Amino acid sequence: MHFQFNIINTDKSARRGQIRTERGTINTPAFMPVGTNATVKAMNSDEMKELGAEIILSNTYHLYLRPGHDIIRSVGGLHQFMQWDGPVLTDSGGFQVFSLSPLRKIRDDGVEFRSHIDGSLHFLTPELVMEIQGALGSVIAMVFVECIPYPAEREYAMNSLTLTTKWAKRCLDARNHEQALFGIVQGGMYTDLRKQSAEELIEMEFDGYALGGLSVGEPKELMYEMVNYTTPLLPAEKPRYLMGIGDLLDVLEAVSAGIDMFDCVMPTRNARNGTLFTSQGRISIKREEFKKDAGPLDPGCTCYTCQNFSRAYLRHMFMSREILSMRLNTIHNIHFFLEFFREMRRAIEKGEFAEFRKEQTEILKNNFHQ
Amino acid sequence: MHFQFNIINTDKSARRGQIRTERGTINTPAFMPVGTNATVKAMNSDEMKELGAEIILSNTYHLYLRPGHDIIRSVGGLHQFMQWDGPVLTDSGGFQVFSLSPLRKIRDDGVEFRSHIDGSLHFLTPELVMEIQGALGSVIAMVFVECIPYPAEREYAMNSLTLTTKWAKRCLDARNHEQALFGIVQGGMYTDLRKQSAEELIEMEFDGYALGGLSVGEPKELMYEMVNYTTPLLPAEKPRYLMGIGDLLDVLEAVSAGIDMFDCVMPTRNARNGTLFTSQGRISIKREEFKKDAGPLDPGCTCYTCQNFSRAYLRHMFMSREILSMRLNTIHNIHFFLEFFREMRRAIEKGEFAEFRKEQTEILKNNFHQ
Repeated sequence: MHFQFNIINTDKSARRGQIRTERGTINTPAFMPVGTNATVKAMNSDEMKELGAEIILSNTYHLYLRPGHDIIRSVGGLHQFMQWDGPVLTDSGGFQVFSLSPLRKIRDDGVEFRSHIDGSLHFLTPELVMEIQGALGSVIAMVFVECIPYPAEREYAMNSLTLTTKWAKRCLDARNHEQALFGIVQGGMYTDLRKQSAEELIEMEFDGYALGGLSVGEPKELMYEMVNYTTPLLPAEKPRYLMGIGDLLDVLEAVSAGIDMFDCVMPTRNARNGTLFTSQGRISIKREEFKKDAGPLDPGCTCYTCQNFSRAYLRHMFMSREILSMRLNTIHNIHFFLEFFREMRRAIEKGEFAEFRKEQTEILKNNFHQ
Repeated sequence: MHFQFNIINTDKSARRGQIRTERGTINTPAFMPVGTNATVKAMNSDEMKELGAEIILSNTYHLYLRPGHDIIRSVGGLHQFMQWDGPVLTDSGGFQVFSLSPLRKIRDDGVEFRSHIDGSLHFLTPELVMEIQGALGSVIAMVFVECIPYPAEREYAMNSLTLTTKWAKRCLDARNHEQALFGIVQGGMYTDLRKQSAEELIEMEFDGYALGGLSVGEPKELMYEMVNYTTPLLPAEKPRYLMGIGDLLDVLEAVSAGIDMFDCVMPTRNARNGTLFTSQGRISIKREEFKKDAGPLDPGCTCYTCQNFSRAYLRHMFMSREILSMRLNTIHNIHFFLEFFREMRRAIEKGEFAEFRKEQTEILKNNFHQ
């Protein structure tokens, strides 16, 4: 395994770094577009490369259920399967079992759940989750965790944490040594449990550390409190990943706390729903006023969509429910997110992260969505 | 208007020609992929160009209803709107009023119908249809016709023909002289009416002639009879277009009768439904046996899909209802159709159309679709 993290600059707690892997370098803070079913929805891998994506996240839960990790292994692994030669991070499925499965039973040795696709019964253990991620052949694997709801009683959170630490150890023992493996700090909304979780995981020496179980319905302030409290507890020399979060206001908060990696379906899902990020704020492409608008979506934007098509065309594609609407909107939103991260990295390099944050916060609060 | 048709070779009645327009040359026999709503479904114009498409068909009826021809004109016309710089042929909407509108009333001056989108009431006249096509700015426009059902009584067919000829004249008078204008031969399944229609239109001197009102439910033999009877009645020096037909067995029959142009949603619609054309016949990508198949869809195929992805991936994309499934399948099927036409043109050039037809007929009859 080739996995090396270097910090190039810091600006207060914000970090500008690089993760080197055998499949390429990931500049941090990094945004990982989500390719749930072995495709970033509506995109092909060439387009993701052209957009400047340096890593893609894919979902263990989904690929285990369909087409099955054995199939992906037999045809050469996930990178070959989806023709993406850059690094892939696979999550561990803990969150999806929690959020997608109609029934689940947590047991000491694993989780029994029903498939959201066909209702079939499955049992995931830490060892199986490691085997699945090994079969997929991702560059970064994640430990299996129980994801708890919000609100959760302290006792529940505590028992869950005990289990999660045990499972992390079992994942470590069962790990595939060709993959980097990240631990996931849990502990619900209790700072002392977060601290305990962080300490227990740090002792096990993972290649990186994630914060999990956030953005599960809690108020933003509480999420920020957990991020700001927990992040500094993590080893400075290892990458830190805030799972499932991508609202750019949250990203700014988390980067200022020292987080390095993010993933979120927001740019892709919003694109398919016609919500587009621009240098002036979010807009809905459905808006009546775009009907005859021959101008580009975002005049300053250099993406393929803005370089070629009018707002009138994008609106027409959306209203006609054309597949090209989803493609063009997704290209734009992913470009916007990756460009935001590129600019954020430059700001940290120059020691201007605070100014960047202030400026962007103003824009991001504009929301013309109808 | 720059519109010139030359025949390069003939092989019995089959013709190998070129239509020169100000937006590029169309090699005939030509297949026109269908871009109903100003996009070939799932594709962008760059991809269509790379696939070798030389002309695209777009639908007057759809674009009139949404977004409206005034809007398309105001943002620079259809070519600019969809960023396709090659020629576009627009149909006249006659067939769509017939096939899509829940209610329609044919009157002497035009057709009243309800939109299939929102039920709103509209009245299309020959003059309005010419205005719409002029606003869209297509390279080739079509006259407005009544499309009659099958079966139709002789008297109905005769009255409809009288109307259609009148409308053709009105279209000619209202034409935009920057566009080529094609007449459409009607007459139902009555050879004498087809002859009458052809003669009346030839007298008006259109830039090309189409056969319309076929493939509306009649037996294949009857369609073939109409094509074989009517095609030789049309002027040899003008392009001949068989509307809405694209089953490749029908194409072979029609080319051997002297038809030059075709359009059909078959390759694109089939692609979205998972039916793929290969050098061995049609297959369904859903088939269980493709689950672990690491090989390309069609080993001899040079398209992007076959050069990059396995059958296992294509099956997985389809089963997961991913947008990329529609993209990759559409690329393959359009490539297959355009390649078929390229090979057919070469066969005519070499005087080997009969052999080509025989060989391809064997393959096209293979149908592994499940």
